[in-house]
Amino acid sequence: MKKQAYQVIGKSLPRSDAYDKVTGKARYTVDVEVPGMLHAKVLRSPYPHAKVVRIDVDRAKSLPGVAGIVTWENTPRVLFNATSTHTQSPPPFEAVKDQYIFDNKVRYVGDEVAAVAATSPEIAEEAIRLIKVDYKILPAVMTVEEAEETSAPRIHEDKNNSNMIGSPIENNMGDIQEGFKCSAHTVECTYTFPVQKQCQLEPQAALAMKAEDGRMMVYSTTQAPHPTRKILSDIFSLPMNQIRVANPPYVGGAFGVRIGFSAKAEPIAVALALLTEKPVKIVYSRDEDFIASETRHAGTIRVKLGFSDDGIIQAADVESRMNGGAYASWSVDVNGAINSRALTIYRIPHLHFHGYSVYTNTTLAGAARGFGAPAPTYAMEMTVDKAARTLNMDPIAFRLKNIIQVGDAWSAPFPCRSTGLKECMERGKKRIGWDDFSKKSYDSNHPRYLRGVGMAVGNHISSAFPFQTDYTGANVYVLPDGSVQVETALVEMGTGVKTTLGQIAAEVLGVPMESVWVKIGDTDSSYDIGGQASRSLYAGGSAVKKAAEAVREQILAYVALKQDCTVDNLDLRDGWIWVHNEKAMPFSEMTQDADYHNVQFSRLEKHKTDNALSWHAHFARIKIDTWTGKIFVEKLVAAHDMGKAINPQIVEGVIEGGVSMGIGYALSEEITYDHHGKQIQDSYHKYMLPTSMDYGEIEPIIVEAHEPSGPFGARGIGENSVAAVAPAIMCAVRNLLGIDVTELPLTPERLLKQIALNK
Amino acid sequence: MKKQAYQVIGKSLPRSDAYDKVTGKARYTVDVEVPGMLHAKVLRSPYPHAKVVRIDVDRAKSLPGVAGIVTWENTPRVLFNATSTHTQSPPPFEAVKDQYIFDNKVRYVGDEVAAVAATSPEIAEEAIRLIKVDYKILPAVMTVEEAEETSAPRIHEDKNNSNMIGSPIENNMGDIQEGFKCSAHTVECTYTFPVQKQCQLEPQAALAMKAEDGRMMVYSTTQAPHPTRKILSDIFSLPMNQIRVANPPYVGGAFGVRIGFSAKAEPIAVALALLTEKPVKIVYSRDEDFIASETRHAGTIRVKLGFSDDGIIQAADVESRMNGGAYASWSVDVNGAINSRALTIYRIPHLHFHGYSVYTNTTLAGAARGFGAPAPTYAMEMTVDKAARTLNMDPIAFRLKNIIQVGDAWSAPFPCRSTGLKECMERGKKRIGWDDFSKKSYDSNHPRYLRGVGMAVGNHISSAFPFQTDYTGANVYVLPDGSVQVETALVEMGTGVKTTLGQIAAEVLGVPMESVWVKIGDTDSSYDIGGQASRSLYAGGSAVKKAAEAVREQILAYVALKQDCTVDNLDLRDGWIWVHNEKAMPFSEMTQDADYHNVQFSRLEKHKTDNALSWHAHFARIKIDTWTGKIFVEKLVAAHDMGKAINPQIVEGVIEGGVSMGIGYALSEEITYDHHGKQIQDSYHKYMLPTSMDYGEIEPIIVEAHEPSGPFGARGIGENSVAAVAPAIMCAVRNLLGIDVTELPLTPERLLKQIALNK
Repeated sequence: MKKQAYQVIGKSLPRSDAYDKVTGKARYTVDVEVPGMLHAKVLRSPYPHAKVVRIDVDRAKSLPGVAGIVTWENTPRVLFNATSTHTQSPPPFEAVKDQYIFDNKVRYVGDEVAAVAATSPEIAEEAIRLIKVDYKILPAVMTVEEAEETSAPRIHEDKNNSNMIGSPIENNMGDIQEGFKCSAHTVECTYTFPVQKQCQLEPQAALAMKAEDGRMMVYSTTQAPHPTRKILSDIFSLPMNQIRVANPPYVGGAFGVRIGFSAKAEPIAVALALLTEKPVKIVYSRDEDFIASETRHAGTIRVKLGFSDDGIIQAADVESRMNGGAYASWSVDVNGAINSRALTIYRIPHLHFHGYSVYTNTTLAGAARGFGAPAPTYAMEMTVDKAARTLNMDPIAFRLKNIIQVGDAWSAPFPCRSTGLKECMERGKKRIGWDDFSKKSYDSNHPRYLRGVGMAVGNHISSAFPFQTDYTGANVYVLPDGSVQVETALVEMGTGVKTTLGQIAAEVLGVPMESVWVKIGDTDSSYDIGGQASRSLYAGGSAVKKAAEAVREQILAYVALKQDCTVDNLDLRDGWIWVHNEKAMPFSEMTQDADYHNVQFSRLEKHKTDNALSWHAHFARIKIDTWTGKIFVEKLVAAHDMGKAINPQIVEGVIEGGVSMGIGYALSEEITYDHHGKQIQDSYHKYMLPTSMDYGEIEPIIVEAHEPSGPFGARGIGENSVAAVAPAIMCAVRNLLGIDVTELPLTPERLLKQIALNK
Repeated sequence: MKKQAYQVIGKSLPRSDAYDKVTGKARYTVDVEVPGMLHAKVLRSPYPHAKVVRIDVDRAKSLPGVAGIVTWENTPRVLFNATSTHTQSPPPFEAVKDQYIFDNKVRYVGDEVAAVAATSPEIAEEAIRLIKVDYKILPAVMTVEEAEETSAPRIHEDKNNSNMIGSPIENNMGDIQEGFKCSAHTVECTYTFPVQKQCQLEPQAALAMKAEDGRMMVYSTTQAPHPTRKILSDIFSLPMNQIRVANPPYVGGAFGVRIGFSAKAEPIAVALALLTEKPVKIVYSRDEDFIASETRHAGTIRVKLGFSDDGIIQAADVESRMNGGAYASWSVDVNGAINSRALTIYRIPHLHFHGYSVYTNTTLAGAARGFGAPAPTYAMEMTVDKAARTLNMDPIAFRLKNIIQVGDAWSAPFPCRSTGLKECMERGKKRIGWDDFSKKSYDSNHPRYLRGVGMAVGNHISSAFPFQTDYTGANVYVLPDGSVQVETALVEMGTGVKTTLGQIAAEVLGVPMESVWVKIGDTDSSYDIGGQASRSLYAGGSAVKKAAEAVREQILAYVALKQDCTVDNLDLRDGWIWVHNEKAMPFSEMTQDADYHNVQFSRLEKHKTDNALSWHAHFARIKIDTWTGKIFVEKLVAAHDMGKAINPQIVEGVIEGGVSMGIGYALSEEITYDHHGKQIQDSYHKYMLPTSMDYGEIEPIIVEAHEPSGPFGARGIGENSVAAVAPAIMCAVRNLLGIDVTELPLTPERLLKQIALNK
């Protein structure tokens, strides 16, 4: 049969969740209501570090409407890692288990002390106020430096003999000393990064109840239903098959903040549901979400780069120290990612990486979109830009000499089978008007303004393999009326997978998109580690494609028998069965016929995930107001190679969202702490999240370098767009002002200070 | 590896639903509550036959709390068969589609005219009273004879040119004329059968709502979730993948009354949910359930038997005329079953069957446990008993000469691969004390009492194949902690399949029963035609076994690789992995290891069903009170061959329940109609369902003649136990009184009349 062009893949079809979302019908965990439901509220520590000496719940308990109170004294003493999807991953990435639901010690302002379930949120809140806690205040450490002092208080006494979290990450290729020896030039710099918040729309929430089928049912905002089930199983000693975790079915954004648990919403809800034998719902307030759910890691990264006279990189030495906050979460893994993001873009014969995180008495840092990428990409790209300038080379030309090519030796534990980075750079360069703007340019009409461009490149993984366990599965059922049901545990948290996974099934089965319905976010499905690591489409799409292909084969074999021909003479397309290039019968007629003959078309497919890097080049054209220190991004061209855009409009939306997050990281977003150890930015009034009014145009460019390991050649796109934004902007700043911005975000205050210092 | 004895199969393990059921925690459709739920009530016809001229809903609509009213005027004009699982089965078994949700004609007392959804059941009830309907009353026919008169009113004008339902069933083997010619003896008799009600505990109920995931969610008491979804899809023009049907998760008995819809609870709830855009729940009252959901078929069967001097059956001619009631339901199929049940027990070289059903203005007749069996088994066994007596032969000896043996030609469309009927007869004969009691015996102490025995035999299918589409599937997931999740669409309606299917998975995977959890009764699963035709264990068990075996193979292959040995050296047993007959590691350790290596063990298996007959011989020891006409069954020995008893205690429970239903059929249960065409027995006060106080001991005997087509050799058992009860009792009556009981039930009144007539 002649291969036809794609019917569904590569088309910007409307999102299947669009109508429900714009009309407000889409249900999120915060919307779920069940009869007899109780509401829970959490008592949180006002101190960054203290022993919980005594908890008196008597007055709270006697408040009418209070159904149950949980503290460290009546909940399981089982240590866990709330955000782990990988309880058994290979060293050094084993999950560090250092959390209880509640402990007799608090480690940051916001740490959980107790929770109350009551008949209304107001009563629960009132009961929280009636709980009396005696604390013994301990000295606190807020920064990496403080935590590393030998006399520093130990935040987890039972862990290593220091505040270091788990083991450091080391990576060596070649001989780093040798590399620098043979380098004609070196540049070196240390960069400091802020705490960024994921700022997903829906706060952390969960509802736990003994379900009709006898299982513990947990509605949740989790990005990872199966791992959440696993951790709950461990904590409450319930077999996994006695727990069901599901999104209801939507998640109002996630960006890494709920891989595994949604902060501690799930275990608190389950503990209270077990205690009260009633459904218990917990919804974090916005300030709770800010102070008590994970953030991006703050920290410092030092990069030293050695290169030859003709601009060939010889050696790179990268050192990372991250502030992990009060609990480990992803603090080991993040340095693995920092290593990868810094050292897989360029061919570097001699490289060395050393990185680690430490505990502090701050909100725990965890996964955030672009996991680990923004900081090292910033540090590396700023250094590369500096290197190019050292040689008076165009930074694009410098990069093109050094970027990884297919087949190159590199430090990633999987091969590079495809890269469209060069094309990204070339197309982006054209769209931003690089040659016009690459020189510093005063705006002659307004001498207070400077306008210019900068660029940077980056990459991101498409799965968690092989750093963590990473596998998935999908079920595809063709129903007797010809409609198709696809089942996956992956999560629709806004990324569009409910649509794109449907497109994959529709393409393979040759049916219109309207015929396919995708069930998502439910542990009643094949195992999957969750919506993270930009893997949903790459991993889940592979599973759906395999399952749909198996079903397609079943159908073709059935039709071939009926039509007395070989499968080569058959095709499924446009909702029809084609025989010898002629429409033979509608798809639904064939399925009804099969039903009549006791034949069903269905398949469960498992998929062990591979990995592949997606690539991007960002070009920023900025305007600096030298009087106010305000930087406005007039245009950001984001050229992205995701292998294949299954749905280009969704891809563009994903890119735009990520760029916006990158702009915030560069210019405004930051959580800092007051001298009581309390987070200052705990609301959208105080936390400076950019809106679409705060920047100009974002122009996504789609580059498609076919990736053999991905479905229809696709790789991940979800996180790739955050990383290179800040360095693109700051390279433009350097271009315009000659300043090397070593601390983010570059707020107007900081910029004015820099301008003053450089005068 | 040496084959071990079964670890789980054949053990009377506690039912997995036992605790929930005895503590009242088990949830049924009638228990389901969702926020904002409306309650529906139905307006029913007071006339057996009438045109609906006008419906005035204005007053009802304006009643505060009324949210919506549906009638024939605002619901889809799509014909359906409410109980069909087989919209496309082969002729002559195509579903006769003759029902609308509401029609502008009513055809029996109780037929649906309108339904109201309101904020409370009381308001809905009140609104029902405010609906004014103008009827044009039509002449009604209540019996087969009336319906067959040429001048009889036509109940469905658009169907054939008579009141016959669909096509008659014909069956011929050999040459029936020739058969009687070469028979030395013939006996012939016509028997009349009553309307029996299934009397399931939970009344018909459904709750329909637009679910969180956008689909139409229907909680339902259906025995057949997938077919229910299909019929709803047809009626409401919703793709099947936009509808989910599930039990919640239990069904409070069924006995055939809700194969497909639960009467019309589902389409009424869906119509009102679509109209009001709210969840709508409908629960039939007991009298609604009695008058407006299907019954067993009443009718007459004539049997003529020809046999030789030495007691060899030569010919059988069977004719069946059944009263189908107002709508077709299973009225075509039932004659197929009557044919099969009458003519597959004995080797009969020359046989002929002719059977059909007709429409009358009575409650529709449909499936009832022992589908089609009690009447023909009665007619045939009474005739066979009579034949034996004609020759002065012991009826057991007569039967043993004639029963089907493996390999015999017979009239069933699948081979007889196994039969334990002989063993059933021999063991039952021993347990009842046949030799002591086979002669008429006056009780010397109480001359008013007669005590004696009778026996009869029967059989039943294990699936609906090949009469209808019959296929199923199962998913088996082994979770990382070693617990097992089995998913099937089969229904736990009291038969114990949630337990026995779990036993099959546990046996195959070598894990303890506690490790297995079975998800049931949900269309989010592989397709299955439902819990009917005694197929759940035979069909569903085969699918679970295949899926579990595939998973076992995956596990063995994984372990063999790890242990560097062949799978022959491995075993899974008692929750352990055995290598070279030594315990190597716990099952859960192996699954955790697999998780670590990105390996999951899971399988979706499809299964095209075969069929096999199960066998039984019933022996009744009765006491007749000749003064009152009351018959008391002192003991009923029920010897059953179900191939393999997966869980003997469950099998015994199933047998006892069926025997109780058979005793009711024989002696007391009956629905009759008054001269207005209204059902007289519309409650448990009026309908004489026997309780356990109304009979003596039931002694089940388990015979296991291995069936190659069944899981672990098992066949169906669910329905097999109803059929031979009545003829066993009535053969005892004949034995004691010389009366040939030709009309059931033999109530005290009828028996006294018979005794008087015979004096």
